[in-house]
Amino acid sequence: MHKITQYLPILSWARTYNRDTATSDIVAAVIVTIMLIPQSLAYALLAGLPAEMGLYASILPLVAYAIFGTSRALSVGPVAVVSLMTVAAIGNLGLTDPAQIALAAITLAFLSGMILLAMGILRLGFLANFLSHPVIAGFITASGLLIAASQLKHIFGVEVHGHTLPQVIGDLWAHLGQTNGFTLALGTAAVAFLFWVRKGLKPLLLSKGLTPRMADVLTKAGPVAAVVATVLVTWAFGLNTQGVKIVGEVPMGLPPLSTPSFDLSLWNQLFLSALLISVIGFVESVSVAQTLAAKKRQRIDPDQELIGLGASNVAATVSGGYPVTGGFARSVVNFDAGAETPAAGAYTAIGIAFAALFLTPLLYFLPNATLAATIIVAVLSLVDFSILKKAWGYSRVDFSAVAATIVLTLGFGVETGVSAGVILSIALHLYKTSRPHVAEVGLVPGTQHFRNIHRHRVDTCPHMVTLRVDESLYFANARFLEDYVLNRVARDHDLHHVVLMFPAVSEVDMSALETLEELNTRLSEMGIAMHLTEVKGPVMDRLKRSHFLDELTGDVFLSQFDAWQKLGPGQQSNPAKGIKQEGVAAQ
Amino acid sequence: MHKITQYLPILSWARTYNRDTATSDIVAAVIVTIMLIPQSLAYALLAGLPAEMGLYASILPLVAYAIFGTSRALSVGPVAVVSLMTVAAIGNLGLTDPAQIALAAITLAFLSGMILLAMGILRLGFLANFLSHPVIAGFITASGLLIAASQLKHIFGVEVHGHTLPQVIGDLWAHLGQTNGFTLALGTAAVAFLFWVRKGLKPLLLSKGLTPRMADVLTKAGPVAAVVATVLVTWAFGLNTQGVKIVGEVPMGLPPLSTPSFDLSLWNQLFLSALLISVIGFVESVSVAQTLAAKKRQRIDPDQELIGLGASNVAATVSGGYPVTGGFARSVVNFDAGAETPAAGAYTAIGIAFAALFLTPLLYFLPNATLAATIIVAVLSLVDFSILKKAWGYSRVDFSAVAATIVLTLGFGVETGVSAGVILSIALHLYKTSRPHVAEVGLVPGTQHFRNIHRHRVDTCPHMVTLRVDESLYFANARFLEDYVLNRVARDHDLHHVVLMFPAVSEVDMSALETLEELNTRLSEMGIAMHLTEVKGPVMDRLKRSHFLDELTGDVFLSQFDAWQKLGPGQQSNPAKGIKQEGVAAQ
Repeated sequence: MHKITQYLPILSWARTYNRDTATSDIVAAVIVTIMLIPQSLAYALLAGLPAEMGLYASILPLVAYAIFGTSRALSVGPVAVVSLMTVAAIGNLGLTDPAQIALAAITLAFLSGMILLAMGILRLGFLANFLSHPVIAGFITASGLLIAASQLKHIFGVEVHGHTLPQVIGDLWAHLGQTNGFTLALGTAAVAFLFWVRKGLKPLLLSKGLTPRMADVLTKAGPVAAVVATVLVTWAFGLNTQGVKIVGEVPMGLPPLSTPSFDLSLWNQLFLSALLISVIGFVESVSVAQTLAAKKRQRIDPDQELIGLGASNVAATVSGGYPVTGGFARSVVNFDAGAETPAAGAYTAIGIAFAALFLTPLLYFLPNATLAATIIVAVLSLVDFSILKKAWGYSRVDFSAVAATIVLTLGFGVETGVSAGVILSIALHLYKTSRPHVAEVGLVPGTQHFRNIHRHRVDTCPHMVTLRVDESLYFANARFLEDYVLNRVARDHDLHHVVLMFPAVSEVDMSALETLEELNTRLSEMGIAMHLTEVKGPVMDRLKRSHFLDELTGDVFLSQFDAWQKLGPGQQSNPAKGIKQEGVAAQ
Repeated sequence: MHKITQYLPILSWARTYNRDTATSDIVAAVIVTIMLIPQSLAYALLAGLPAEMGLYASILPLVAYAIFGTSRALSVGPVAVVSLMTVAAIGNLGLTDPAQIALAAITLAFLSGMILLAMGILRLGFLANFLSHPVIAGFITASGLLIAASQLKHIFGVEVHGHTLPQVIGDLWAHLGQTNGFTLALGTAAVAFLFWVRKGLKPLLLSKGLTPRMADVLTKAGPVAAVVATVLVTWAFGLNTQGVKIVGEVPMGLPPLSTPSFDLSLWNQLFLSALLISVIGFVESVSVAQTLAAKKRQRIDPDQELIGLGASNVAATVSGGYPVTGGFARSVVNFDAGAETPAAGAYTAIGIAFAALFLTPLLYFLPNATLAATIIVAVLSLVDFSILKKAWGYSRVDFSAVAATIVLTLGFGVETGVSAGVILSIALHLYKTSRPHVAEVGLVPGTQHFRNIHRHRVDTCPHMVTLRVDESLYFANARFLEDYVLNRVARDHDLHHVVLMFPAVSEVDMSALETLEELNTRLSEMGIAMHLTEVKGPVMDRLKRSHFLDELTGDVFLSQFDAWQKLGPGQQSNPAKGIKQEGVAAQ
């Protein structure tokens, strides 16, 4: 029973579902639906797909998430970053036939769904942790900028190609002479109006005496108002005959039943993109879901989230959609509007289905410029370069990861940018741990405490040197320690004891063990005994399984103070005390 | 001046060069030359190249290393593993024209030389540390087995293709009916003779009253004896007309001046192989050099070794050779024979040049089977499966890295094997550190020491929980800690203080900082204060650069015992003491 509710979270919340919860959910669903209709059309346009695919991706996937998802506020559907990654992935294929492009998008949703489900079943949610916060922040900022730039072509009414900022800006600049005045006027007006709605409308409505909730609903309806107004203007003045690009015929009706391509070479070409889309989509979705769950002291289960999002993408596949995930802005709206359970998502699906059934003829005269304006205003809120300043102040390593992610995303596209960000974070982390901090320590007078000789006034002893190793020892840093110790010992001809203090060593792998053995042998050849102190339980257990402790020329002390008492200044008369004499080679 | 001797180590040892050192070096060079003549021909055969390229690769590269290398005993030239990697790399190109194949090998040496030089100049020697000992051991063992298997075709006198163990064995089995009896007889006799030389000859010679040095020289001459005997037999009985494959015409004279191909698409195809060859060659060479240097209390400089090996490969390029590195067996022989300086390598080069000038006509009747026998006997000493047992006993993680390296090298070839080994070691390491050990600790009665409550009898307090974090915090493990703390806190409704003990935390990156901030906020929402103790200097410096310490609801204590005195059982009357009240949200 525990198992079933774990994999079908709907069973746990549906039992307590009542009229109050339903009312809250329905109100939230209405608000989200109003917001989602123009957004889903706009993101389909961004993804280079027919507008209706945006609607299709906003129906069944929401129902699937309502059944399998664990977040009570997450709103699933097409989102900006994943749409951008979709157009980049499909662009790599070099397709021109719209039917082929749509099939590729459906196949991408299918692969992404399968990857997410597999990761969920294998409980690999922790893999998302390898995307560091700075890399995600840099990636989202750069993507937002890239998306906004890519939409300028619709505002100017010109043809622009390319997936990188220099390409997009260069191409736009080259075609600026072909700007369509009507399109530019409509687009600029829409952008200005939407910015005003975002910043100025709510205070105005509140000052007119509206209730906050009503003011909120009207604010969310801003994009719908822009759509209605520009559709009317375009229709009334026949602007579509004046070069203003419009959405045109959108098929009326529920999503068609569709299947992905089973062409293995296509799978092969799309696999890496699908993997990136899955991981990025998952990370974006989980971070929103966690933030919102925390506000109500709820917890979400990342591994089950993988299953929920996987199911949503499979649902997108069978209903003619494209890759979906939990959207940031939309989920916050859903939460603020009072959604109590995932059922709100299912009600939203009903709203979008209604739109697909009855409203599509009204979208015929909708200018692409309006949709572009919606996207630009939405994504510019994602752009936040303050992460650069924050990272610079905190750590150069984190800064270089953010900066590289931003530069590479803008300069070489989303897939290169995020892959490079992940690889760079891991490489920098490995580089850091490959040169562990080693501190030479001495006794803080009057205590049993040992601290860094360069930071504190401490007692030391000329015959022994104590080195505190501040990192687990593994293949990448073992040789560094060996070099460090041998260089330290080479400076000092009076030494009889080297004490390695291991309070921070949680792991000694086989490479490190062999290096310690070698270090022991080399020191022993110089007539120096090697001792260990403060070795943790699990590390000691591990060392006991090897011959290392038999070969060690010195002792293992429980605490550094024990070592000091046995080997330190009080014992100067017999500097070799503690060395097992048989282990020391003749000098 | 320091700079110049650093990059030209010859300047430091040449100043003290005298007649005694020269004598030692010349004796060592004679022994190594005797060993190297058949070996260099054999490895060229293994690499799928004309026999003379083996000789060419054993002349100028040795001179280059004598100038730029830091090891006094390393003997550079063609080696088994790099020859195997060369044939695999060139096999990928699908060439059939011998001149094209030779050009590809020369180009591979050039790329490898450039990569090594670049790594040396950028001081990237530490990158070799990312090849863990178990991965190297597994790779060498599997390569030895693969090389031995690949040479069986010469012993049986049949055609066999393939770069993996199943391919080679399967192909050999399929062609066994075409075995040439004469070849098999010669080959088997040579293998048996060489094994006997290795195991039985030296004791025999010593028992006959020869000096150990003389016995050594004669033992090293075993392969030469096998060469002479089989050449004579083949010539006398005209076995080459009976299907015994022979080396045939070997051009007489010094190496030709050659240049690599500058075809960028070829560079592109060879680059990854060249990188793997460089890194593997470097690791093999440096580990031999270090072992030998340690025996004489000398140190080698890994970064300068990159330059030495890079120069050797460039020298191989311009003199018609193929990739070279420091060989294990040969360097040990050089060392044991008394080589004192890298000049021994230069004298060896003179010996091989002499062979190339005058001895090649004598090699006409040399059967390939003899060379194969030389290789088989040499590489079987590399095969050592005991690493599997050792790794299994020590750690499952190390075991899986070795086992995967061996299986993948045998099953999918050298390049896949070693790449997978490296990636797997890093992945396993990251996986381990992504789930850091966290121990709940209590006070050891009568001391100021805190230990794991599950391993020791300790005092605890119902209002505070102390968690010792045993790993640096970074993006991959920060969320794990957050989940751990929140799950621990959820079990216990009486808590007022969570103390995180950081003695093993050497690093808190920006992702981890954000996670700590979030954890602080969540705990504060539950009315629980978060404290830190035993924070290291560098970590504290870092935290001070952020707002974290201002927002922290609790305090930072210098030692865990201070926290215990302030928050522990003695303070039960005021459980919230130590919480900055302003930081705690109303419940």
